[in-house]
Amino acid sequence: MTLASSSIGIFDSGVGGFSVVKTILSLLPNENIVYYGDTARMPYGNKSKEAIIRFSLENAHFLNQHNIKLLIVACNTASVHALETLRSTLEIPVIGIIDDIFDVVSKNTNSRHIGILGTKSTIQSGFFEKGFLEKFPDITCHPIACPLFATLVEEGLEDHLATKILAEEYLGPLKNKPIDTILMACTHYPFIEHVLKRICHQQINFINPAFSCALKTKQTLEKMGLLNSQSEPGFLKIYASNDEQSLKTHASRFLETPQIKSIFF
Amino acid sequence: MTLASSSIGIFDSGVGGFSVVKTILSLLPNENIVYYGDTARMPYGNKSKEAIIRFSLENAHFLNQHNIKLLIVACNTASVHALETLRSTLEIPVIGIIDDIFDVVSKNTNSRHIGILGTKSTIQSGFFEKGFLEKFPDITCHPIACPLFATLVEEGLEDHLATKILAEEYLGPLKNKPIDTILMACTHYPFIEHVLKRICHQQINFINPAFSCALKTKQTLEKMGLLNSQSEPGFLKIYASNDEQSLKTHASRFLETPQIKSIFF
Repeated sequence: MTLASSSIGIFDSGVGGFSVVKTILSLLPNENIVYYGDTARMPYGNKSKEAIIRFSLENAHFLNQHNIKLLIVACNTASVHALETLRSTLEIPVIGIIDDIFDVVSKNTNSRHIGILGTKSTIQSGFFEKGFLEKFPDITCHPIACPLFATLVEEGLEDHLATKILAEEYLGPLKNKPIDTILMACTHYPFIEHVLKRICHQQINFINPAFSCALKTKQTLEKMGLLNSQSEPGFLKIYASNDEQSLKTHASRFLETPQIKSIFF
Repeated sequence: MTLASSSIGIFDSGVGGFSVVKTILSLLPNENIVYYGDTARMPYGNKSKEAIIRFSLENAHFLNQHNIKLLIVACNTASVHALETLRSTLEIPVIGIIDDIFDVVSKNTNSRHIGILGTKSTIQSGFFEKGFLEKFPDITCHPIACPLFATLVEEGLEDHLATKILAEEYLGPLKNKPIDTILMACTHYPFIEHVLKRICHQQINFINPAFSCALKTKQTLEKMGLLNSQSEPGFLKIYASNDEQSLKTHASRFLETPQIKSIFF
């Protein structure tokens, strides 16, 4: 077995990372993917930096035992807190979901005012404000913690009235601000993008970091000569720290790819 | 140091168990308490039986290192799934929050129709239905999973409109049923008892298992000659698997005992 035929490892706290799997599957259909959902300890978003680093190292260690050539940290909270540690610990390339996000957002905003939605832990870290200040100091950030969104998505309540009410409350402070772009800095949020869009009324660019993450993965594998050359579709293996079967069932729902059923195990 | 002066160990997944600490403090003010919140892995309610047993053994092991004479499993989900394993593993008495609950409920219901509110994991276990069928077969159970309640309480949204809407939805199936008693089979629910009461309109007995649990603890210690004979108030030590400081801050809020601040560390 060559290194190129090895898998891409992806971890997230639960179902959220399937939004990344989806983009990888469409951009790199011949790659094998090993997905690890840390469902025993999810959600990550309200936990401390120290805990997130510990969880991330354990998840990476698990995936590393499954012959992976590259690791994607699909979770925003883990990317914000643990990327540095993971990169200094692992010998394979590590891609964080928000690696190229500053450039992507900058290209999308004309008004230079952006909203950033994330978990409590992600927002409290100040990661995005610091990053924009450094790279694009003309951009004004309006960060908002949305602590309930991830759990609502995990519970399948995307279209529930409670989700709409909480979304209206969370997004309230963005009203009357000249923002034209909203960064969904949590993998769960693309699954309620339609709810967020309806609340905003005005024309807003919603940025899903999964797309730039998939693109960076493709470019990295190309550059390293590690693209899988097999002609058939790759496999998707799903593992979880709790109730693997339930995570697989969720995968079918979130990936919306009926044929995926035949390739994951 | 005598065994009687040792502590009572209590664990829960997060802040919920403080409803048990509160009743222990009022019934047994001279006892020392060591509390462990498994905040790194909370919530427990949507996780599998196998995971809950593993977590419970680890929590018990942690508390066992802190010189405890008795263990209280404050979490309903853990009591439902892990009590048997804990009792066969530990050498100290283990009290589950729902140990005497069947008798308590039976004494409270005249109509012999009861509602049972719990986490997904607790309700799916069928624990209460099996227990009532065995002990009081004339009681008809109406079990309802309330997967969002624990997270809403953890986030401090007890009086939020989203909590009210979800509570109305969860309790909907109980309407037009001849129930006169509702068992709050999750330690978080007593903190939203006022919300639940407003929805029910009719006269309903809300049962908080923390009271019978505290009483059983007292009786057990008395029977074993292990009541703490010190005249000053006991201490409350709080540990957590994630962000201990935040759990201590929550303790002040939930215990509503200003003087407790001076005794916990």
